[in-house]
Amino acid sequence: MDNKEISQAVIGRLPRYFRFLGELKDEGVERISSQELSDIMNVTASQIRQDFNNFGGFGQQGYGYNVEYLYEEIGRILGLDKTHNLIIIGAGNLGQALANYTNFERRGFLFKGIFDCNPSLHGKRIRNMKIMPMEQLEDFVKANEIDMAVLTIPKASAVKVAGRLSGTGIRGIWNFAHVDLNVPDGIQVENVHLSDSLMKLAYNINRFDNETLSCFDSGFIDEK
Amino acid sequence: MDNKEISQAVIGRLPRYFRFLGELKDEGVERISSQELSDIMNVTASQIRQDFNNFGGFGQQGYGYNVEYLYEEIGRILGLDKTHNLIIIGAGNLGQALANYTNFERRGFLFKGIFDCNPSLHGKRIRNMKIMPMEQLEDFVKANEIDMAVLTIPKASAVKVAGRLSGTGIRGIWNFAHVDLNVPDGIQVENVHLSDSLMKLAYNINRFDNETLSCFDSGFIDEK
Repeated sequence: MDNKEISQAVIGRLPRYFRFLGELKDEGVERISSQELSDIMNVTASQIRQDFNNFGGFGQQGYGYNVEYLYEEIGRILGLDKTHNLIIIGAGNLGQALANYTNFERRGFLFKGIFDCNPSLHGKRIRNMKIMPMEQLEDFVKANEIDMAVLTIPKASAVKVAGRLSGTGIRGIWNFAHVDLNVPDGIQVENVHLSDSLMKLAYNINRFDNETLSCFDSGFIDEK
Repeated sequence: MDNKEISQAVIGRLPRYFRFLGELKDEGVERISSQELSDIMNVTASQIRQDFNNFGGFGQQGYGYNVEYLYEEIGRILGLDKTHNLIIIGAGNLGQALANYTNFERRGFLFKGIFDCNPSLHGKRIRNMKIMPMEQLEDFVKANEIDMAVLTIPKASAVKVAGRLSGTGIRGIWNFAHVDLNVPDGIQVENVHLSDSLMKLAYNINRFDNETLSCFDSGFIDEK
């Protein structure tokens, strides 16, 4: 396997390619050119080719890309041919919502346990799991070869729990708390900052309104 | 107000600046240099200065930046000095989780209504709202000057609902469905693709494992 480090920007785009290719595959489409893919994905054909060139190109001159092959290859690169064991820490609405996302299971992400510090929740059933007390966390992670922990707890708790997870063998944290976590090398963190996302939407709404109302010419810097 | 179009990459970084500056303000810090901000945020000082230069610079030579002023200015750019009226469409776990995020209210994002197609949920109370049937959607949006709709529904429904929202005066859609929406100009869309985020984490975990196990030299392309 190629050990060249691929930029996070390219990696960030792969799941979207995977999603579109999955739909094309479901529709029975066998081959597609970069231009056709560009038209439906609203990404330039040149970007598509550049992105795929990070992984050996895939396509054939005059043929385009084989949809099923491309889908499988991107899936493999994303590690979707493996299964991953997950736990959820924080059994509130958000934690329960994530536990119920069947989309994750289809991608090989399996929820093995769910934890909460609230004793009145202990033993309550969510899907095939019972909510466990926090005291059992480290032992459970080690005994069940848990790869990733999903943190759906307030930020002060998230910082403490991240500390507890270091050294348990966990390899990744999917963090919904509104804080940046400091973790040792060896633990990857992916943040989902919902407030940031909503603020970005608000900015774009207000900017659009300002531009449509303005009498002045706008100078554009388009660096997407 | 400057009508120059700022790149989405810069806009995407503003909420994080806002968050760190808010914490510094709460801690009573009055001024900060780009280097100090760089050290705590793990962003280069040069990036910070470039980003702020999009909005007129803010800082003073030899002084650095005034924390409170910077916080207010970025808040204003993000439109946080305004309030926004929101509705939630889809009253499942995720929709209810979002309805309960007090963080959003602090930023001026006010939930005014919540809708679901399931009749057994109608009339059920979430915070200060009662779950309404979908038939009331368009009238409610117009009567209550709703700015944004949060879609926490399956993808086929999301596509249909986006169609219904066009022409109601809504200006933004915060989309949690695993699909890209086609909307007219005048409606901004911000997608939260949770599966994509989780897949990116899985990739990073597996890449890290491969690199620590490899005997070969890696060539690095660092284009973050």
